[in-house]
Amino acid sequence: MSRVSKKIRYISLLQAWIAGGILLFGFLGGHFLWLAAVLCVAVFSIAIWAGLILPEEAEEEMVRQKLKSHKQSLEMLSHYRHDVMNQIQLLKGYLQLQIYDRLQAPIQKLVNDAQRHSVLSNLPGNELPYVLIKRELAAPMLHLQLEIEDKENWKEHLEQEIVTFINYLSAIGENLSQDLGIIAEWNMKLRLSGGAASITLAVLGEHVNNTYIAELIEEFGRKGLTLLEQTAEGQTHILSFGSQVKPNVR
Amino acid sequence: MSRVSKKIRYISLLQAWIAGGILLFGFLGGHFLWLAAVLCVAVFSIAIWAGLILPEEAEEEMVRQKLKSHKQSLEMLSHYRHDVMNQIQLLKGYLQLQIYDRLQAPIQKLVNDAQRHSVLSNLPGNELPYVLIKRELAAPMLHLQLEIEDKENWKEHLEQEIVTFINYLSAIGENLSQDLGIIAEWNMKLRLSGGAASITLAVLGEHVNNTYIAELIEEFGRKGLTLLEQTAEGQTHILSFGSQVKPNVR
Repeated sequence: MSRVSKKIRYISLLQAWIAGGILLFGFLGGHFLWLAAVLCVAVFSIAIWAGLILPEEAEEEMVRQKLKSHKQSLEMLSHYRHDVMNQIQLLKGYLQLQIYDRLQAPIQKLVNDAQRHSVLSNLPGNELPYVLIKRELAAPMLHLQLEIEDKENWKEHLEQEIVTFINYLSAIGENLSQDLGIIAEWNMKLRLSGGAASITLAVLGEHVNNTYIAELIEEFGRKGLTLLEQTAEGQTHILSFGSQVKPNVR
Repeated sequence: MSRVSKKIRYISLLQAWIAGGILLFGFLGGHFLWLAAVLCVAVFSIAIWAGLILPEEAEEEMVRQKLKSHKQSLEMLSHYRHDVMNQIQLLKGYLQLQIYDRLQAPIQKLVNDAQRHSVLSNLPGNELPYVLIKRELAAPMLHLQLEIEDKENWKEHLEQEIVTFINYLSAIGENLSQDLGIIAEWNMKLRLSGGAASITLAVLGEHVNNTYIAELIEEFGRKGLTLLEQTAEGQTHILSFGSQVKPNVR
């Protein structure tokens, strides 16, 4: 809860107490009318003060939050701009050296990135797409693609839980990638039904090896996600995880 | 001022009035102790209600604003992604047809866009860079580059004024471009000193013609910006405007 909201709460409680005091001293006691009058002046002063100061503070907090959001927007744009420019520099270089057959790779990377971002943008919810794209732009070694099954059963109150859960798993993946120096792509299908979560994870990546997969399974296991099945399709490792209880991610 | 802030203000004023009423009836009047007691219960109830409800409302308003900002961030990213993809599609096409000498133009456009955004990002202030990049991404026919002279004298309270002013001028430019179907680039140098503004505007663009320049001068004139000097350097039209008073942009 924000500072202003807390202040509103405490000041209101204070006023309620004082009003109770006026009743007690002024009308039940009878002898302490002067004390009740003092308390009355106190309520009056606090109310005037709160009416002048608190709305201003609430506005300032809103403005602060707005400016913070703007800054984050610009940072996300700047990350993406740098990603684009890196590939463009490659293109410029190959073009200058007339190595035309290598132009395809940077172009394809730009297309892949854009498609991945676009899919993330279309995920349900208000916060989930934002959080995932922000993560993707800031942490470039894990490319996470998420699919939520039963989109039609999407419930707003589930969003915060899913965001926390995905953030948690993707932090595992990003750390793993950075520790082993392996860029990986995860295509994750998530089902959250009742109290249990189940995940199908397809892991792609030129350098993804058995060490990577073994460590991934171990880390997921620590969070209560049991490996149910492990298969491979060509270069892609496919892992199915299930959890009997809601995974504890807090 | 937001709805919650207004509520805080009105509720506090109401409490102050009632507290005044208690004083009047309870302690000055003497005979109306029962009325003072009723008012006292009213203050108590309002305070309890305000303490429970208002902080929740304030939080909800913050969350709403946060989600709105997230949505705008994603929209900006999406605009930029589409701009990039448009050029990438051109690149892919030329590459497929092996027309290598036309690859340079889309690449150069991506570099120019990125450089322009990067310069805008580095403008002073918290809101100005955000507003200008957002405009640039949403309204593609006017490319506006802004330079603020005397950056070291940048004053925070000037920011809102400058944002409004620039928004106003760029709306003129965007409309002009759309009416005449002419993509233009403006390099604007802005000096705001004391009560007066002065602007040096370099207008570039393959199709920028005398009609465009004449209409621009007329529109700026309507807003109190007098043309002081008009020169040309090659394809670039350079216009100096001055204003004796602070331009009225509201």
